[in-house]
Amino acid sequence: MAKELAALIGAGHTRFGALSEGPRQLVRDAVDSAIASVDAGLQHAEIGEAFLGTLGFSGWQIGNSSAMLNEEGRLSGIPVTRIENACASSGFALHAAIRAVQSGHRDLALVVGLEKMTDVTSPRRRYWLGVSGDTEWERLAGLTFAGVYGLIASRYLDQYRLPRSALTEVAVKNHENGALNPNAQFRKTVSREQVESSPLVADPLTLMDCCPVSDGAVALLVASPEVARRFTDAPVWVVGCGAGSDALALQDRQSLTSLAATKRAAAEAFRTAELDRRSVSLLEVHDCFTIAELLALEDLGFAEPGKGAELTLSGQTRRSGRIPVNPDGGLKAKGHPIGATGASQAYEAFVQLRRSAGDRQIAGASVALTHNVGGSGASATVTLFRAG
Amino acid sequence: MAKELAALIGAGHTRFGALSEGPRQLVRDAVDSAIASVDAGLQHAEIGEAFLGTLGFSGWQIGNSSAMLNEEGRLSGIPVTRIENACASSGFALHAAIRAVQSGHRDLALVVGLEKMTDVTSPRRRYWLGVSGDTEWERLAGLTFAGVYGLIASRYLDQYRLPRSALTEVAVKNHENGALNPNAQFRKTVSREQVESSPLVADPLTLMDCCPVSDGAVALLVASPEVARRFTDAPVWVVGCGAGSDALALQDRQSLTSLAATKRAAAEAFRTAELDRRSVSLLEVHDCFTIAELLALEDLGFAEPGKGAELTLSGQTRRSGRIPVNPDGGLKAKGHPIGATGASQAYEAFVQLRRSAGDRQIAGASVALTHNVGGSGASATVTLFRAG
Repeated sequence: MAKELAALIGAGHTRFGALSEGPRQLVRDAVDSAIASVDAGLQHAEIGEAFLGTLGFSGWQIGNSSAMLNEEGRLSGIPVTRIENACASSGFALHAAIRAVQSGHRDLALVVGLEKMTDVTSPRRRYWLGVSGDTEWERLAGLTFAGVYGLIASRYLDQYRLPRSALTEVAVKNHENGALNPNAQFRKTVSREQVESSPLVADPLTLMDCCPVSDGAVALLVASPEVARRFTDAPVWVVGCGAGSDALALQDRQSLTSLAATKRAAAEAFRTAELDRRSVSLLEVHDCFTIAELLALEDLGFAEPGKGAELTLSGQTRRSGRIPVNPDGGLKAKGHPIGATGASQAYEAFVQLRRSAGDRQIAGASVALTHNVGGSGASATVTLFRAG
Repeated sequence: MAKELAALIGAGHTRFGALSEGPRQLVRDAVDSAIASVDAGLQHAEIGEAFLGTLGFSGWQIGNSSAMLNEEGRLSGIPVTRIENACASSGFALHAAIRAVQSGHRDLALVVGLEKMTDVTSPRRRYWLGVSGDTEWERLAGLTFAGVYGLIASRYLDQYRLPRSALTEVAVKNHENGALNPNAQFRKTVSREQVESSPLVADPLTLMDCCPVSDGAVALLVASPEVARRFTDAPVWVVGCGAGSDALALQDRQSLTSLAATKRAAAEAFRTAELDRRSVSLLEVHDCFTIAELLALEDLGFAEPGKGAELTLSGQTRRSGRIPVNPDGGLKAKGHPIGATGASQAYEAFVQLRRSAGDRQIAGASVALTHNVGGSGASATVTLFRAG
């Protein structure tokens, strides 16, 4: 097994949902909570660098927003960087933080993922969500983000001659998990009938195939392997990182039913970690729409092409299954505050591998994979974590 | 002297100015030109990772814009990341690329700095420029970006009891340099009288104290020290990197006449490089307004507080002086396409240290410092380069 790249030594997570707090308050709450989670205690001044992952939805601070970490994270003039890769912003911010400590530049780095989406009125949200697709060929052509994934889902079900029950099963499972997560936006189970009879958004996707519009922030404390044990006896090790990208527009890609960015990210992460897929205890995948979870299972190498549906329908991705997927409820039920999602997935890896996930704990969790996608697959990260 | 962190092995620069090319074309031109500049040749497929520094002015691709590097940079699915720290976006993107090669993740990384500003009509530009200041206490209070620097300039001249001729001298010198730079937006000298009699923008700053609104893109090829010589016999070594930040709003800072972010960045860069300020041959500093160049001289440690004016008025910062500053014309005359500026400064270091700067060549240039500021000092980078 390869050498550890970095360690998570603390993590904080606000509730996800339609929240009254503004973006600065959300950041403050997440950072405070991350700092409070460090077993041996931590002073703000020990943080050497910080990264903010956010799309900047609603334009509350369009430029230079990372600098507000000085105020809301109570930092004092350390380097701060905003990283924006749409829905994968904090997945990439986490990788930047890992590099900051791995390269020896810093002992300790902070990652904050943030989005405040409900400030924007409903008709305007639709356009905001489209900004992560290709401007000319998708957004200005009127293709909404649900429309993009609707096209992918149609093609997938047709190509592999599958019933839509495979999509339904993702929603049902993720709501079942979300119901156990105190931070989740939706803490209620849903029936197959409810999913399938909810209003059609973009054929074949119904409202219940889509993740909600959410507010929230997540903070992670990333330490170099050398200093991690100074802060905790139970660090969660980062053992693999991979990333990839692809053309922005669907029309410029090789396939509609596979994300090349995910495949590349997964290949690199497993190569650097020198780990086998069989050693993975749980997956946190980017299920912005139910179809995305099926694609992720395949692109990450946990199912053959077209077989993600079967794996899901067989119950093997439930918490009690062979390879639990999205035990926190996923984007679908936990919510998807765009820039916060990558960090939220790492938060779940942190609590699961420290056996502190409460009611949703996966028994014997020792290795976790997180998978964060920007837009409809224009960028992706995969990160592998191992219990300390 | 410390070990090299990375090397520049190629660089490309479009003209800066009001250009007809769209943002994608600018990127394509800059990348093509950078690749063509590599002595031993380079295949696009050899680039392992790419970073895009851009504010995203005008909203042509709000989310996920780094993914367009696949198309316009002819990359094939490698990790891409957009970094946005306002006017320091590509300074921070350069640092990310340096870390990517220094940490052993990649042999070769691409940095692209980009902004297309003239697409936006003049009244709307004023608001766009304000987005890098604090939203509540500056932008929404009606303080324009020139207004922010006007406040700083007023305070500076008053605090040190200086005449405005110190500001004037910066503009005159930088136009003199810009006149020799084929990529500069303004290739004309200006007289002291012209500067001082141009329309007042934000007291005491006149139009000629302000950098222009510009389009442009710059691409840099960054190699690990181990592979650099495979591509060229004349790499330009990166020997020091530093960065810092501060509160977004002027009112929340310790001083109006010194940027703490710059001081911190400079201290770190010189410490990591194990270099003395006396060994620096030229400075590329962030002169978005003339006052900013005076502050930079002081905060970077090349003049005592309040003495940047004297250093400038004495002619020591001219190309023939003891410490030439902004030989390419600076933001003032070369132009300031926001996200492209940090990379453009590194481009100048590259050509100067390779003795290929043409008419504006600084004789005997061996060490160059670049200084890139986000907003009015909310973030800053300093980078030190040494001739190979």
